[in-house]
Amino acid sequence: MLMNMSSPTRTLAPHPDRLLPPDPQVRAVARTIYEAVRELPIISPHGHVHPRMLLDDEPFGDPTALLITPDHYVTRLLHASGVPLEELGVGQGALDESAARVAWRHLCSHWQVFAGTPVRYWLEQELAEIFDVDVQPSADTADDVYDRVAARLAQPQFRPRALFDRFGIEVLATTDDPVDDLAAHAKIAADESFRGRVLPTFRPDRHLEVAAPGWRAAADALADASGCSTDTYAGWVAAMENRRAHFAAHGGVSTDHSHIDVGSDVLDPADAERIYAAARAGTVDAAQGVALRRHMFTEMARMATEDGLTMTVHPASRRNHDRPTFERFGADQGHDIPVRVDFTDPLRPLLERYGNHPNLTLVLFTLDETSFSRELAPLAGYYPSVYVGQPWWFLDAPDAIRRWRSAITDTVGFSRTSGFIDDTRAFCSIPARHDMSRRLDAGHLAGLVADHRLDLDEATEIAVDTVAGLPRRVFGL
Amino acid sequence: MLMNMSSPTRTLAPHPDRLLPPDPQVRAVARTIYEAVRELPIISPHGHVHPRMLLDDEPFGDPTALLITPDHYVTRLLHASGVPLEELGVGQGALDESAARVAWRHLCSHWQVFAGTPVRYWLEQELAEIFDVDVQPSADTADDVYDRVAARLAQPQFRPRALFDRFGIEVLATTDDPVDDLAAHAKIAADESFRGRVLPTFRPDRHLEVAAPGWRAAADALADASGCSTDTYAGWVAAMENRRAHFAAHGGVSTDHSHIDVGSDVLDPADAERIYAAARAGTVDAAQGVALRRHMFTEMARMATEDGLTMTVHPASRRNHDRPTFERFGADQGHDIPVRVDFTDPLRPLLERYGNHPNLTLVLFTLDETSFSRELAPLAGYYPSVYVGQPWWFLDAPDAIRRWRSAITDTVGFSRTSGFIDDTRAFCSIPARHDMSRRLDAGHLAGLVADHRLDLDEATEIAVDTVAGLPRRVFGL
Amino acid sequence: MLMNMSSPTRTLAPHPDRLLPPDPQVRAVARTIYEAVRELPIISPHGHVHPRMLLDDEPFGDPTALLITPDHYVTRLLHASGVPLEELGVGQGALDESAARVAWRHLCSHWQVFAGTPVRYWLEQELAEIFDVDVQPSADTADDVYDRVAARLAQPQFRPRALFDRFGIEVLATTDDPVDDLAAHAKIAADESFRGRVLPTFRPDRHLEVAAPGWRAAADALADASGCSTDTYAGWVAAMENRRAHFAAHGGVSTDHSHIDVGSDVLDPADAERIYAAARAGTVDAAQGVALRRHMFTEMARMATEDGLTMTVHPASRRNHDRPTFERFGADQGHDIPVRVDFTDPLRPLLERYGNHPNLTLVLFTLDETSFSRELAPLAGYYPSVYVGQPWWFLDAPDAIRRWRSAITDTVGFSRTSGFIDDTRAFCSIPARHDMSRRLDAGHLAGLVADHRLDLDEATEIAVDTVAGLPRRVFGL
Repeated sequence: MLMNMSSPTRTLAPHPDRLLPPDPQVRAVARTIYEAVRELPIISPHGHVHPRMLLDDEPFGDPTALLITPDHYVTRLLHASGVPLEELGVGQGALDESAARVAWRHLCSHWQVFAGTPVRYWLEQELAEIFDVDVQPSADTADDVYDRVAARLAQPQFRPRALFDRFGIEVLATTDDPVDDLAAHAKIAADESFRGRVLPTFRPDRHLEVAAPGWRAAADALADASGCSTDTYAGWVAAMENRRAHFAAHGGVSTDHSHIDVGSDVLDPADAERIYAAARAGTVDAAQGVALRRHMFTEMARMATEDGLTMTVHPASRRNHDRPTFERFGADQGHDIPVRVDFTDPLRPLLERYGNHPNLTLVLFTLDETSFSRELAPLAGYYPSVYVGQPWWFLDAPDAIRRWRSAITDTVGFSRTSGFIDDTRAFCSIPARHDMSRRLDAGHLAGLVADHRLDLDEATEIAVDTVAGLPRRVFGL
Repeated sequence: MLMNMSSPTRTLAPHPDRLLPPDPQVRAVARTIYEAVRELPIISPHGHVHPRMLLDDEPFGDPTALLITPDHYVTRLLHASGVPLEELGVGQGALDESAARVAWRHLCSHWQVFAGTPVRYWLEQELAEIFDVDVQPSADTADDVYDRVAARLAQPQFRPRALFDRFGIEVLATTDDPVDDLAAHAKIAADESFRGRVLPTFRPDRHLEVAAPGWRAAADALADASGCSTDTYAGWVAAMENRRAHFAAHGGVSTDHSHIDVGSDVLDPADAERIYAAARAGTVDAAQGVALRRHMFTEMARMATEDGLTMTVHPASRRNHDRPTFERFGADQGHDIPVRVDFTDPLRPLLERYGNHPNLTLVLFTLDETSFSRELAPLAGYYPSVYVGQPWWFLDAPDAIRRWRSAITDTVGFSRTSGFIDDTRAFCSIPARHDMSRRLDAGHLAGLVADHRLDLDEATEIAVDTVAGLPRRVFGL
Repeated sequence: MLMNMSSPTRTLAPHPDRLLPPDPQVRAVARTIYEAVRELPIISPHGHVHPRMLLDDEPFGDPTALLITPDHYVTRLLHASGVPLEELGVGQGALDESAARVAWRHLCSHWQVFAGTPVRYWLEQELAEIFDVDVQPSADTADDVYDRVAARLAQPQFRPRALFDRFGIEVLATTDDPVDDLAAHAKIAADESFRGRVLPTFRPDRHLEVAAPGWRAAADALADASGCSTDTYAGWVAAMENRRAHFAAHGGVSTDHSHIDVGSDVLDPADAERIYAAARAGTVDAAQGVALRRHMFTEMARMATEDGLTMTVHPASRRNHDRPTFERFGADQGHDIPVRVDFTDPLRPLLERYGNHPNLTLVLFTLDETSFSRELAPLAGYYPSVYVGQPWWFLDAPDAIRRWRSAITDTVGFSRTSGFIDDTRAFCSIPARHDMSRRLDAGHLAGLVADHRLDLDEATEIAVDTVAGLPRRVFGL
């Protein structure tokens, strides 16, 4: 761990040209492109902000509860640096001020550990632009910065809805279980005092893993929510269709799928029924569970051709890699670790059936960069239904996004990509993340202008379309 | 899909410094290097132009028949954008002018979809430099551009042989089935009015997949062509040797191999004979077919050590991924999608036998960029027979070529690479593709000069050798 | 092969700004950062220099024996270029001057083959800065350069210990078999006339592959060295622990592990004993051998939590790919070829047990760049025990190191990396390799400054810590 205890206090002032290309001529071009998109509204069609936050509009708690404890992007690198998760508030319930300050000091005294990472880049922009902090966090400044953020959080203009407006968010999608009644979404939509669109996303993962612990209870809950008996395979499928319709009726525009692979082999109906019956009976084995999940993945595509919900796919993360920590603190604590993934052969059964269907939209994300040029761009460059998702999670970072544009653009240009997806649970990071993407796209497009592959006018049109057009088309907004 | 219908007409004028590095000092170095290779003759040792085109020297048909319908690089992204393949002329036979104009308008109105892709880069250069078009294609300019290209195509200097000369092509290799009599090649060679060298390439893929549909007929045709009975394994091998000799006698310098993997395990003679007999009897299974194909791959290397034909290997494309479209329109319609591939272990049996043989030349191409630094460069940096092929297909593009040079040069420098391979069926794109490669190599070398890893003199020598020396040595020209 | 026989003699003068970014403003920043680390002592915690070289301090032999024959980085590309290994001295014993000059002329006349490679970059710096050579090697200058280097080698200030001091090496680790008595290390440590630290590294690979030829003799030797009977599994484990203690007592700080994969599944004790007994009886099969090796890999981690030795892991190189050459010349002749490798799932059993143990340090290296962003950075960004190793072997090169920093920094910044590891047997290349790394890190950090992601002060602190702090912390020095 690096110590910078003796270093002088450093100012915090995000540079107006940050992330734009360093060559002066290219930077000037990038700046022009960036200016055209800088102030456009934010469309966030996939993420993990909780709808109750915007429904209740309660003031945020302390700085730690807002910026550290719930954000595994922040806690994971502190954990790697030797800070116990419990000292960051993980699994501790609400912290008292003293404990919150301890966690905050951990973050600030480890500031240099985050040097070069997007987490620090976002936090710096959040602190400076939202909370008017003008010094770099450090062991010395930790309490001052805490005080300044805490003071802001007590003011009404720092409540969730006020920030939502200030951030310029036009649409924000949440991620929800199929059994969710979506009451929060309905109330937000009915509240005329709030103009933001907050949309649910149908995420059926746990319902589709019939050999996993807890599945039986999930199927029962699905029956309750849908009014369709899930005693039979046909009823279970009908229950899914019912809940998708419920989501669509509440403004939902997409479903999200995050399994370890994207296999899509279709079962004979009799086999699907047989495996389903075994699942209900508690006698299903792991291989059967995989087979039914892959079959249902294609079923989800079939349903999408009927109800028009866009499918987003986020595969190949080994969830909860550190089992002892999972058992102690639960999921989403920063130790989901990517594994290799293939798309070409596993997706073929689905795409043979529905790949050319005019009503299907399939956005493919990956944590395995090798897919970019080898599989995702070739698939999206042929199938009208397929779009390449923006870099996600570990790849949602300046250099990774640059590599992605480089790997994708050669084959599919810009029109076959999803537009930026923040996929975050860190509400205050949303503007910084979208702004980062706009800067990087401006830089990439300026590079094409410098290469004389595009002229500035067209590059600017593409930048605007990437922010304002693509996400609307891809997500049917 | 982006619409630019209201946009003003944009001029089309490829910039003389396109693709050279943006930094002014580095660009100046790159320009010097590029000037040394700009006008050198084109050597195209692997591609898919049909020899009859040059034999018959008929005028090209309309712009659509020349630039759209037969080029799956163009049709695939239009298909992804929602244009039906039949409206692009695919599978329609000769189009009347009205239908040809419809297809052409699809391309022009989707021009922005191609922004940033090499397809647009090549087409822009073709339109500007071959056909004197000076406006960007768009919905508004589609008919004007069509008219201009059509008018040129009616002139004698736009016939195939005239363009061949104008393009500065010195050698052009075609790709041919082993049973081809090569009469077209013989007639071209005998025609004293045409100086270009047009060479056949022996591509035995369909003959080596003994468990695939149609193989039996292929083996019969091979017997007819060679005069060797293919009733036995020994006869079949002899037939291959016979046809390779026929190709060599007609100027052929290489064989081409494109299977899903590069396995090369050698069978015991009895096993090879047994599987072959099963194939003849129609009782072979898929696993046996794979085993015999891998064995024959090493047999091809053995033959290469005897007849000196260079082997080029283009593995790991899942052919005809979209089966319904394949059944309707046939192969090569833009939905061959790459899969992961390994070289190190699969090629070991072949390389243990022949990797150090002075008469073997093995050029390894890949659509899986992960092979570049991990396997291809290490293999080519040790085995005298192995060369790293230039980026191919989806990777035959500015950013991918830059990544390739970056990944390869550290381990093998320049001398273990193949020289540029256009691998195209789009005749008019050949100059643009070779020019693109020369620009990118000039840029890469200028980067090494800027890094002070090379001086300008030596960088220029290497650029010249890459264009004029390497392909001659690697292909024995 | 390129010939430059007629070219004029080129001067050899490594540029002071080599490898720094070309943009003038960014270069100025990089130069400032580089100046802060340029003269810092070299810490080399993993490599293959032989300790007897420093114990005996004999003059080096001729230039070929020093710079060509033992260095497979040099011989492999010459071999690929058609030079027989025996003409480079491989397997020939000491060469007479005539033969040494023949080898040297091969290197010099193939100088252009190495253009763009780090091997040439290092050799140029070695020749210029150690041996005062001021002309580029070529066919014409070969004998002159040979004479100049040979004359220097005869002088006392070119003996190993003098060079060790001149190179500014503070710590140099060797790589040693567990049965080595480490007498050389003990004598060097006891020699008050030499201040350098020369530390052993425990490398048990051949002892852990119980199904490999020669294992039985290895186990017997281990018994002799440790005084623990290796007749039983428990004894064998105790023997390992004993030898690790011997290494630690002689200054060893790490163990090194280089198997084809990083599987770490733990066996039941009874299964481990059963397989071990089969190995002793000579009846073990390959799959059992793999199972016991993976089990022992986790055992090594368990031992590391007890004795604190850092584990370095260098997996997934297919050793001695060219079997005929291996049989003739033995191992380490340049034909170890990388294969694909996974870390996430294979390492999970080990990390579940010991990943959060405060006494474990695990440095993961890879020859498969796809691991960088997909697995290594995510693992090191969560587990306190895991560090991402610097690029190794084929990837220990300017462009690969730049790609590595780009792929890693987004997720883990700088503090979760190992510091530079030269891993070389080419003693004279050590300063050039470390200097290269410092230049590239300065360039990368300058890029972050240009991106306005870091300020210059902090970038400089990080550069200094990367050279002077990280390797000490990661290797407990």
